Amino acid sequence: MRRRHMILSAFFFNPQGDHRMSWRHPRAPGREVFGLDYYRKLAEAAERAKLDTLFIADHVAIWDSVESGVAHYANARLEPLTLLSALSAVTSHIGLIATASSSYSEPYNLARTFASLDHLSGGRAAWNVVTSAMDEEALNFGRDGNIEHAHRYDRAAEYLDAVTALWDSWEDEAVLLDRESGYFADPGKVHRIDHAGPHFKVRGPLNVPRPPQGHPLIVQAGSSEAGKDLAAAYADVHFAIIRSIDEGLRYRADINARLAKHGRAPESFKILPGILPIVAGSADEAKERQEFLETLLPERVGIDLLSSWAGIDLSAYPPDGPLPELPDESTFNGGRTSLNRVRGLANQNLSIRQIARKLANSGSMPTVAGTAKEVADQLEAWFVAGAVDGYNLMFPLLPEDWVNFTETVVPELQRRGVFRQEYEPGTLRDRLGLSRPPNRFAVARDTHRAAS
Amino acid sequence: MRRRHMILSAFFFNPQGDHRMSWRHPRAPGREVFGLDYYRKLAEAAERAKLDTLFIADHVAIWDSVESGVAHYANARLEPLTLLSALSAVTSHIGLIATASSSYSEPYNLARTFASLDHLSGGRAAWNVVTSAMDEEALNFGRDGNIEHAHRYDRAAEYLDAVTALWDSWEDEAVLLDRESGYFADPGKVHRIDHAGPHFKVRGPLNVPRPPQGHPLIVQAGSSEAGKDLAAAYADVHFAIIRSIDEGLRYRADINARLAKHGRAPESFKILPGILPIVAGSADEAKERQEFLETLLPERVGIDLLSSWAGIDLSAYPPDGPLPELPDESTFNGGRTSLNRVRGLANQNLSIRQIARKLANSGSMPTVAGTAKEVADQLEAWFVAGAVDGYNLMFPLLPEDWVNFTETVVPELQRRGVFRQEYEPGTLRDRLGLSRPPNRFAVARDTHRAAS
Repeated sequence: MRRRHMILSAFFFNPQGDHRMSWRHPRAPGREVFGLDYYRKLAEAAERAKLDTLFIADHVAIWDSVESGVAHYANARLEPLTLLSALSAVTSHIGLIATASSSYSEPYNLARTFASLDHLSGGRAAWNVVTSAMDEEALNFGRDGNIEHAHRYDRAAEYLDAVTALWDSWEDEAVLLDRESGYFADPGKVHRIDHAGPHFKVRGPLNVPRPPQGHPLIVQAGSSEAGKDLAAAYADVHFAIIRSIDEGLRYRADINARLAKHGRAPESFKILPGILPIVAGSADEAKERQEFLETLLPERVGIDLLSSWAGIDLSAYPPDGPLPELPDESTFNGGRTSLNRVRGLANQNLSIRQIARKLANSGSMPTVAGTAKEVADQLEAWFVAGAVDGYNLMFPLLPEDWVNFTETVVPELQRRGVFRQEYEPGTLRDRLGLSRPPNRFAVARDTHRAAS
Repeated sequence: MRRRHMILSAFFFNPQGDHRMSWRHPRAPGREVFGLDYYRKLAEAAERAKLDTLFIADHVAIWDSVESGVAHYANARLEPLTLLSALSAVTSHIGLIATASSSYSEPYNLARTFASLDHLSGGRAAWNVVTSAMDEEALNFGRDGNIEHAHRYDRAAEYLDAVTALWDSWEDEAVLLDRESGYFADPGKVHRIDHAGPHFKVRGPLNVPRPPQGHPLIVQAGSSEAGKDLAAAYADVHFAIIRSIDEGLRYRADINARLAKHGRAPESFKILPGILPIVAGSADEAKERQEFLETLLPERVGIDLLSSWAGIDLSAYPPDGPLPELPDESTFNGGRTSLNRVRGLANQNLSIRQIARKLANSGSMPTVAGTAKEVADQLEAWFVAGAVDGYNLMFPLLPEDWVNFTETVVPELQRRGVFRQEYEPGTLRDRLGLSRPPNRFAVARDTHRAAS
């Protein structure tokens, strides 16, 4: 069954907004981005507007291989799970999507943290599974360079196997708390997982009972082939790049075919493209806002970012000349989604300077600019056409674009009946129309019993 | 300068109380120990009483190598950092001590989480550094057995070096946020740590600015020789076992000698012994409370716990006979503090059943039982004698013993002028009289400048 309402997720990577130089904006926040109150206000605005989720992206390093990174680019940020755990105590309904890397952490620790957050938040935890692609990240975890791309996704899949097994290691009825008999738990319903694969060995059981959602929601971003396969096998929600209704319909068809291989129904998988909403009193004003942000970007930052995405040090190339030949995707070790976006612009005969400016300003996500009504028109049209299940809202400037969206675009969508007026009861899974995963150990026992 | 006020830290390992079968008590909490509200109320009671810290102990496994562990013993628990992050949003003054293992996590991740919690809480984060001694823990992290004892402490020391260097990797003045020039940070004040040791390789810098406390407080528990040396080198607060004023004075003298080797003053190091306060209307009633809790312990649990502490499977030995010969401490791979407590009782010619009953009921910490006035008398006497800096309060039954203590013993201590009436301003370090650590990179530069 298709949901009647679109899903709206409020995202940030930079705490000052998704435009990477947003911190320079005169109305950007200052040092308060390292304290709780700033985020509490963002969360409260999102919850007043009945948004589905808060989504915090992350890296496990400073982008410092070029000096412009540390000097100009605001990539110091609080750890998302810590921050969302704090926000879980001052919110009641909104989903909490924390990014955590499967490349540089232990499955047992991660399973436990998300299970704990799911308990504390009453079933609102979601894990955005990422693989870490930056050399700067590898160097913080004892590696000399980045884990090879295919290997990174193999490892992520195995990581997910171990983590979801740990979440199942306590069956739903395992906790007895029977004071009379002295049985705290039913030992027959608490399971070792005995995971042993090429990357991890984890015995289990977890030391946290099964989370309220069964499994915290699994979110996956990244549109490489390996990324889409991983998503179809494991994810509930997928962040994608979609630039038109047609592209959305094609993307959905492709994903549905992948889901079918895993015996999954299309409804079990929600596709949310990222968009940058620029809402203003008029289309002209929206354009001005966007252009003003672009003036904040030092040219050096753009070219350094482009170097990083292209996997080529461009500092020695003339900025008004063309890009040198790009690496082949199939052997590229960095983020392939970004590489393909670079390739698209290179094919348009733009100079290094132009490509850098364009990419560094917009990231890789499409902009939806205009009045609240115009923005709502587009969001509604894509959703009603079945091209998307909702949106991952990447606001250029925080807090104002975020708050403004909740106060102008959301009421418009509510009036049109394509977004909720009140939170539905239940867990995050319930609200998104995603079913609670069965417990593999209970299923195995029932299957065994039925067969014997 | 000696502090005028004792330090009071409210501790729990089992969320139902430090008596390990407390969950069976008729007034113990039920499933609410997996939700936030239960802990929020504990934290609020502690903050109303102006206690210094909440302290949550932890293991990274279920104690399941014997069936009685899972069946009878309530050792499922939420992950402490997640829980304390949530509580940071609903408290304002109390310190937040989270236990985290240096054996099975990555220094970069841990440094980042504690730095984030310190920012979010306004300088209230504290890390109780533990090494993981249980085989059950090792098996959850790809190891076939426990890391060898000496190696575990070497690793912990190196882990602390890397983590504290990461906290220093942003100097206090590194964040510029200069919108005009476009300088987010001063690249000369953001440092790679380039840590490379036998256990870890971490490049840094951290991607979180320096925490408000400089370094979140370092807490260490465990009274083995290796533990005390680690504490003297790195810790601000030390949890100890102290059973009398004389023992406390000797313990302090021993620690002071160790501190001197590191050029540290006695005041930079606070010693808090663990105590189990049993407060009642009369001494007889306190005794009854204690005896009632003892009736809740299945004999099997006691003997299994003793097996685990002694490092010997006792299930085949007659419970009314003596303990077999205990392992030698110097080569013992488990927790040495527990082993020594077992040895102390074995030397008193008690049977396996008696030792098991005694140890499993009291843990290894002394009980202080009586009326509020009597309990306050002892707490005051030890503090005034200089034998302790305060106490780690391990309440047998939660929430009632915790709340009761804050409402009866704390006001008595306040009346006597040995405990604060109001929170002092500042960070947790400020309140405990512990200075803010200088930044090693700033110190190195200043030293270099002075010399040239």
